[in-house]
Amino acid sequence: MRLARLLGPDLKQILKEDPDEVRELLEEIHPEDLADIVGELDPDEAAKLLAQLSAKDAAPIFERLEEDEQGEIAPLMPPESIAHIASEMAPDDRADFFSGLPVSVGDVILEKLEVVDPEAAEDVRELEKWPETSAGHLMTTAYVHVSPDVNVREAIEAVRAHAEDHQENVYNVYAIDSNEKLVGIASLRDLLLASPLLGLSEILQTNIISVKPNDDQEDVARRMARYDLNVIPVLDERDVILGVITIDDIIDVLTAEQTEDVQKLGGVEPLDVPYFKTSFLSFIRKRGIWLVVLFVEEFFTQTALRYYDPVFEAVKGAAYYVPLLISTGGNSGSQSSTLIIRGLAVGEIKPRDWWRILVREAVMGLSLGVLLGTIGFGRVLMYPEQHINFALTVALTLVGIVMTGCTVGAMLPLVLKRVGVDPATSSTPFIASLVDVIGIVIFVHVAKLVMANVIAAAGVH
Amino acid sequence: MRLARLLGPDLKQILKEDPDEVRELLEEIHPEDLADIVGELDPDEAAKLLAQLSAKDAAPIFERLEEDEQGEIAPLMPPESIAHIASEMAPDDRADFFSGLPVSVGDVILEKLEVVDPEAAEDVRELEKWPETSAGHLMTTAYVHVSPDVNVREAIEAVRAHAEDHQENVYNVYAIDSNEKLVGIASLRDLLLASPLLGLSEILQTNIISVKPNDDQEDVARRMARYDLNVIPVLDERDVILGVITIDDIIDVLTAEQTEDVQKLGGVEPLDVPYFKTSFLSFIRKRGIWLVVLFVEEFFTQTALRYYDPVFEAVKGAAYYVPLLISTGGNSGSQSSTLIIRGLAVGEIKPRDWWRILVREAVMGLSLGVLLGTIGFGRVLMYPEQHINFALTVALTLVGIVMTGCTVGAMLPLVLKRVGVDPATSSTPFIASLVDVIGIVIFVHVAKLVMANVIAAAGVH
Repeated sequence: MRLARLLGPDLKQILKEDPDEVRELLEEIHPEDLADIVGELDPDEAAKLLAQLSAKDAAPIFERLEEDEQGEIAPLMPPESIAHIASEMAPDDRADFFSGLPVSVGDVILEKLEVVDPEAAEDVRELEKWPETSAGHLMTTAYVHVSPDVNVREAIEAVRAHAEDHQENVYNVYAIDSNEKLVGIASLRDLLLASPLLGLSEILQTNIISVKPNDDQEDVARRMARYDLNVIPVLDERDVILGVITIDDIIDVLTAEQTEDVQKLGGVEPLDVPYFKTSFLSFIRKRGIWLVVLFVEEFFTQTALRYYDPVFEAVKGAAYYVPLLISTGGNSGSQSSTLIIRGLAVGEIKPRDWWRILVREAVMGLSLGVLLGTIGFGRVLMYPEQHINFALTVALTLVGIVMTGCTVGAMLPLVLKRVGVDPATSSTPFIASLVDVIGIVIFVHVAKLVMANVIAAAGVH
Repeated sequence: MRLARLLGPDLKQILKEDPDEVRELLEEIHPEDLADIVGELDPDEAAKLLAQLSAKDAAPIFERLEEDEQGEIAPLMPPESIAHIASEMAPDDRADFFSGLPVSVGDVILEKLEVVDPEAAEDVRELEKWPETSAGHLMTTAYVHVSPDVNVREAIEAVRAHAEDHQENVYNVYAIDSNEKLVGIASLRDLLLASPLLGLSEILQTNIISVKPNDDQEDVARRMARYDLNVIPVLDERDVILGVITIDDIIDVLTAEQTEDVQKLGGVEPLDVPYFKTSFLSFIRKRGIWLVVLFVEEFFTQTALRYYDPVFEAVKGAAYYVPLLISTGGNSGSQSSTLIIRGLAVGEIKPRDWWRILVREAVMGLSLGVLLGTIGFGRVLMYPEQHINFALTVALTLVGIVMTGCTVGAMLPLVLKRVGVDPATSSTPFIASLVDVIGIVIFVHVAKLVMANVIAAAGVH
């Protein structure tokens, strides 16, 4: 990003005037940085530039553009050029590119790709079969496979042949039998350490950690992270290898999933694209929906307050403590739900732990409630006109509210997880609003108990 | 985890009764799963078991234990056994282990390590020099280095020699001159494709993407993700190579940093350890601190409401709308701050974009405010006794409050980032409480404008 900003204007000029320079630039500048610069050009400038390059030079830049940039540029280029570029792309990037295109545009290009590189076109169709966030969609079909009957030298030779055409996935050899069933994996490290004439089957690692094509990408990420894997094979139910997933794609997945979780926690529908690229209308929809839900949820505070009007009339000034009290419940609820949601996401917490969590949160809520209740008690008494019973009401209400916040905040994500909804959907504002209403009920009932005489004197019962 | 639960009891029994079985188990079960089981044993059982194994068998299990488990088990074993195990650990895991120990325990073991494996002890001291979350602390000193004057065959030979002793970092060769300055990198892929007698310098990649030892681990993670690197070298200011960082450590970093961010956003000081391992007192401290801060912040709502008492007395029922109105401001503020904090974290947003963001959020706040204002207007009029002017007051207040929420929520993280504080620290509850107080002020002033006659009739000015 920095490089693009610093060198941007000059490089843009060079790229526009003399596309032959790009080959030289590619030697000196990482294609990621070049993609940044190309992404900043107008789509028609970028399309013109990429069309002038050889497909081999254009592919490493094009595959690193954002999906929305690819979508803008591709329709402006001759479908034939794009097909040639697509043929040079890594299979997983190629599939991502096609799945980001409108069907009408994608079909035209895919037809051309069929002519240029039938195998690649077949690959795209294969990978597109799987759901967007599944292992099958994330995998690449470019990996080294050999028969388990070859020897070590032949396996190394297969690596070398693969490496001629591919940057990625050259460090593992997958041994597959005649039914494409995966029987074992050998790392290039193991191959180098073995004697060249040894049978590959002698050194194959047969205890294979793999994923299924329908597994969610987040589960794939956790599994690869857990076992420190750089590559993981995707096997169908008969152990036939469909492809492999590489770690660099997993990092992108982790980052995207985290963004989604954070946005949900903040009460926003996940944006899918960066802040500045999200359209105004899309923002209104994704934020508005939650704001309206929370607004309607919060109506109940007004309804409750109105319902308890006689009590608030009887206890002068009590209504002014409502925001303070209920927001404290919301804050403790946010804390608990955040802790539980994150714990569930990283697998530290399971729904079956709910009882332990409930006890823990109740005790924690009691302790934190006593802490805040003490402060609140002192605060109320700073007003000389306030009766000690009102201070006690505030203190006890805080204990009740914080306990409620902690337990409700902790249990709701567990319930959602149990019924199969992403727990992050119970955004912290949602829990806060829920606890707000309960808080009012607690406040009024504590007041009725502690200040029974005052309230009775005002004729309320 | 599942494996540990399913096989747990049996395996535990085997491990306790016959440690010789562990070698066989290691062939069949991933050390990560064995570490899970060992982590579930009582510390003294685990210590007894590990001490009975050869250091070579124990190390892959021990280095995969959680830091707190290591800390519990290590003091229960003879320092000599631990030193032998440490000598077999990967240098980065070894350094992590020592930095997690109390100094008194660590020093005794380090002294023994000095005898067993002086180079490893030196390594620990070297890596411990760097701050806990820096690149220097994350790197490993086990990588393949050769002189740039060797040929391709010799470089491959160096890889093979390194692979004899190490699992990791066998796929890149680092060419360093006589001053340990890094002059270039060759991947094993490039080496395999080149002719064996070619000089290594012919195929060295000299355009090196690296990090400095003091770089923050999150920046290292972003850089490796951006350039799809599996390994990145750590260079000092004179380009001397100090070590390399591998991608599996980066995934752990990303997950840990994300947990920290989510917890901060939820108004909890980061826990550092999993939910169930966090002590009760530590919870009280890490949650209590924020709850008290937010509680004190929220006092101002009570102060403001009390101050404006005459207005609320004049406009019957107005006080009951306060929680609804101010929480809506808080919700819109949470949304904006979440979007900006995440945008900053992944580098999509820079503080210098503040003006664009301010304009965008103000317009968005206006639109969302009008949306909610319309709903609120209708809602108030559902009560036949409410005057249309009060409905208008509620509607206009919502417009003002949502605009304020959006702009304050978006600007505060940018300000924090600018002054060098982690923007996630402006937790969403903090912003919500801040907006609450402003919301009351807006409500009262809108009421004074729209309902001037009612308020004047009640003798307020």
